[in-house]
Amino acid sequence: MREQFRQQMQELSDTLVLQAKAAAKAMNGAAASLTDANLALAERVIDADHSIDMLERNIDDMGISLLARQAPVAGDLRTVVSALRLSATLERMGDLARHVAYVARGRFPQAVVKGEVQQLFEKMATKAAEVGNLVAKLVETQDLSIAAQIIADDDVLDDFHSRTFDYVLDDSLDLTRQEIVDIILLGRYLERFGDHGVSVAHRMRFLVTGMALDDEEMAQIEEF
Amino acid sequence: MREQFRQQMQELSDTLVLQAKAAAKAMNGAAASLTDANLALAERVIDADHSIDMLERNIDDMGISLLARQAPVAGDLRTVVSALRLSATLERMGDLARHVAYVARGRFPQAVVKGEVQQLFEKMATKAAEVGNLVAKLVETQDLSIAAQIIADDDVLDDFHSRTFDYVLDDSLDLTRQEIVDIILLGRYLERFGDHGVSVAHRMRFLVTGMALDDEEMAQIEEF
Repeated sequence: MREQFRQQMQELSDTLVLQAKAAAKAMNGAAASLTDANLALAERVIDADHSIDMLERNIDDMGISLLARQAPVAGDLRTVVSALRLSATLERMGDLARHVAYVARGRFPQAVVKGEVQQLFEKMATKAAEVGNLVAKLVETQDLSIAAQIIADDDVLDDFHSRTFDYVLDDSLDLTRQEIVDIILLGRYLERFGDHGVSVAHRMRFLVTGMALDDEEMAQIEEF
Repeated sequence: MREQFRQQMQELSDTLVLQAKAAAKAMNGAAASLTDANLALAERVIDADHSIDMLERNIDDMGISLLARQAPVAGDLRTVVSALRLSATLERMGDLARHVAYVARGRFPQAVVKGEVQQLFEKMATKAAEVGNLVAKLVETQDLSIAAQIIADDDVLDDFHSRTFDYVLDDSLDLTRQEIVDIILLGRYLERFGDHGVSVAHRMRFLVTGMALDDEEMAQIEEF
């Protein structure tokens, strides 16, 4: 019974790592499909989202079954509760990557945006992909120094995001209506991806330390 | 012990109802602040968001404490797990209402948009507020016929949302850059509010019936 319990806990953790890696891979693919106007890659990101959703279901089923049959306590309980919450956040990160890929696919064979704005989005998408990679590494290693890096990267994403508005609101820049729509939505998707990364960072700290978040940290999660 | 358990379960359910009502009130206020360019109301929605966040923390603390000390099973376990997930969704619905109120406040004393687009947003905001009211009613009564209404209202919101793009992409309509930004973001906030309503509807069905969602329903939740 005890051994079965440990085995199920391990399976839960392993599946969460798989999901985090899949979400990271999705944003890496989405970022590349955006910067290279790569249709095949955008399609792959869109198709792969279903498997991230399935991993969420697996994690939820495993977590609820563990709670019902094993009544875990202390660190094990935190692991299960955290998995149930993280699975939803990672699923959402996958969705946001898919949304980015949709925009890349929708404009193909054109690039989504041109000139200076394109350079900004290349940096922003690369940074979002980096957040995805850090999230996967944090979930796998539980090394909380990675959480700090994620929070710092999210600040950079927020800064890029506010610069997208500077471009859009600058009437001297010649932009089509479609370009304006794409800039606003892409900026939002990438910025939200970073927010979810911060949410993972804080949840992982709770998992590892058992410490609830203080007010300032809660405010950070909730300022989305 | 048993009585204390029932009392804690009741407190958890009551707090979730409070949070759902607060989220509904926030979207009602946000919708009115948008359609009436009402600054004081927008400020109240923005200020009240903190209390929705606090309710999420209370629910999470109560839920984790119940899992740790009482190891609930069957319907009680579903209630606790559902509360932990619903609290995050309701918190997010509050955030989206606050985002709408920010836009209304940012343009005051002007209306955010004018003419035909304004009429569309009045209908859309009213529909989102209705979703909020239905969500509160569903959480309180657990009457699943309300879930079907929420899903139908979300379809209407999606339809309104796609019409916002028709306006924005119509070059013959004279819109400032700021108006385009506001239309895209408001449309997204209100549409997402509906999506979260659908998520609550499906989670409540799981809570009441114990039935996991089928593939099509999961796809609906995950197609955000």
